[in-house]
Amino acid sequence: MGDKPLELVGIGNAIVDVLSRTDDDFLRTHGIAKGAMTLIDADRAEALYEAMGPGVEVSGGSLANATAGFAALGGRAAYIGKVKDDQLGRVFAHDLRAAGVRFTTPMAADGDATARCLVLVTADGQRSMNTYLGACVQLSEADIDPDLVAAAKIVYLEGYLWDPPEAKKAFRKAMALAHEAGGEVALTLSDSFCVERWRAEFRELVDHHVDILFANEAELLALFETPDFEVALGALHGRVKVAAVTRSEQGSVILHDGAAHRIDAEPVTRVVDATGAGDLYSAGFLYGYARGYDLPTAGRIASICAAEVISHYGARPESDLKELVAEALGT
Amino acid sequence: MGDKPLELVGIGNAIVDVLSRTDDDFLRTHGIAKGAMTLIDADRAEALYEAMGPGVEVSGGSLANATAGFAALGGRAAYIGKVKDDQLGRVFAHDLRAAGVRFTTPMAADGDATARCLVLVTADGQRSMNTYLGACVQLSEADIDPDLVAAAKIVYLEGYLWDPPEAKKAFRKAMALAHEAGGEVALTLSDSFCVERWRAEFRELVDHHVDILFANEAELLALFETPDFEVALGALHGRVKVAAVTRSEQGSVILHDGAAHRIDAEPVTRVVDATGAGDLYSAGFLYGYARGYDLPTAGRIASICAAEVISHYGARPESDLKELVAEALGT
Repeated sequence: MGDKPLELVGIGNAIVDVLSRTDDDFLRTHGIAKGAMTLIDADRAEALYEAMGPGVEVSGGSLANATAGFAALGGRAAYIGKVKDDQLGRVFAHDLRAAGVRFTTPMAADGDATARCLVLVTADGQRSMNTYLGACVQLSEADIDPDLVAAAKIVYLEGYLWDPPEAKKAFRKAMALAHEAGGEVALTLSDSFCVERWRAEFRELVDHHVDILFANEAELLALFETPDFEVALGALHGRVKVAAVTRSEQGSVILHDGAAHRIDAEPVTRVVDATGAGDLYSAGFLYGYARGYDLPTAGRIASICAAEVISHYGARPESDLKELVAEALGT
Repeated sequence: MGDKPLELVGIGNAIVDVLSRTDDDFLRTHGIAKGAMTLIDADRAEALYEAMGPGVEVSGGSLANATAGFAALGGRAAYIGKVKDDQLGRVFAHDLRAAGVRFTTPMAADGDATARCLVLVTADGQRSMNTYLGACVQLSEADIDPDLVAAAKIVYLEGYLWDPPEAKKAFRKAMALAHEAGGEVALTLSDSFCVERWRAEFRELVDHHVDILFANEAELLALFETPDFEVALGALHGRVKVAAVTRSEQGSVILHDGAAHRIDAEPVTRVVDATGAGDLYSAGFLYGYARGYDLPTAGRIASICAAEVISHYGARPESDLKELVAEALGT
């Protein structure tokens, strides 16, 4: 990939999470799909917020979490995403910059408020996400800074960007610019319901534009419309340069060049909150990949990062990831 | 105290906390008094926020924490405090109501933003607080709803209210209304630096207006200008109906009617974040007191609540306090 000033540019929906503990009864009463990400409008967001318990606000957004994790490992990273110039937008920008991520996307001066995700966490550590996209719908091609994208080894995009219509164009522009500049394109499928919404387009992306693919088991099954994991894995072989498929406590499988590397999950005493598990897995994997580690080692780094983030409340790392990884690798 | 529809009305500075992990070097470099609450202006708040690490936003405010804790125990509570009608003000109001607290103080339509406290937590669990009062300076006599105050067994006020000038008048009005209606007045001295700022006035309050006093050791020493704890305790005897003095891991002392009850601290595996320890101690004590438990039992409930809140990040209870207390008391 040559020598580039940046290792990663993440592009995604810029969201502040509102985390709240709840129980299955509340999810049922309010018709919330457990474990999934559901898009909601402003009215539903207000009604749900009214009904739910006290919250904790913490910067989120799948790709922003991943990019913050990448920076926490010591990687050189930037982020592109849209917030409004409001209190929560300034919180989002602060937290990302304070995590060491370059973030220069102009804030929206008007229009809807900064996006919020009402994350309802049950005692089993599962999170059910309800996202009001707000200012994210204003992300457009104009926000894709060509110099920034060209400066990065890897441009990493989230499937969720397919939801706000203008963002698709920004997405395609970023992919084209990355490849022109000799960089690689990574994609996460984000969520199985998101795959259901955009299956045909995601298949086209995977077949023709993506170099590195992240998916969890449910997303992969949705992509290939099969209930059988091994069938889905077989269908994925050869479609992208590298694929990493995560299976929660069953670890992950990394596909490359006809080979499948099975990676164990890192043991965790208790899953407190699964929010960010996939995001941090990809952060660790891409860090290992960008730094030239072999794929099983990149997978191990990924598992360590995922284990850290599910051991506490919230989707951004709280421990020193760099130290955790150095200890594990004995470096 | 007769039968009243409410057991507690808390009145205080309505603040959203921005919690962030840091180290002693950062505190030194930025001239932050460790373990204390320092008032800062808007410029300093911005500069400090810029310099500090990623944050987590969570509703705070000493008396709001105490009132939320009281409600979590099953107590009937209301709160009076001033936020602006902005994103963080709406977060504050939501979190308090979702905790079961009646909160009807009108939000400020203009003026400064909702108050923020930059809480820097070091690895030893100590918190250093930097408070930008913002909309709190708009709390005035007009916000003291006479019916609400008259409806409560106990009106609980924080020493911090002495900082915004208009709030003092609101404070005095609330005390007078409470006593007229046959209720009791509780006060927390809040912080030793706050006592230094307002010693003479606090002494007058304690001697003539307060029925129940909360102080920690440093605050009590500051109030009586002595370095000797037993001397300070002696000086306090007889000045108020009930006093509870907290000493961190050394437990607390409850003074009443010439007697001193020494209460053990509840054991804690690890102090994660001391924010809210005093607030939740007072919540537990007042709950026990309002429900007619003897003073040592009220002290025990207080210690259980304090132990819960220092075992995690943030100043509002995360566990079911009602259950914790019922288990401990075997009720």
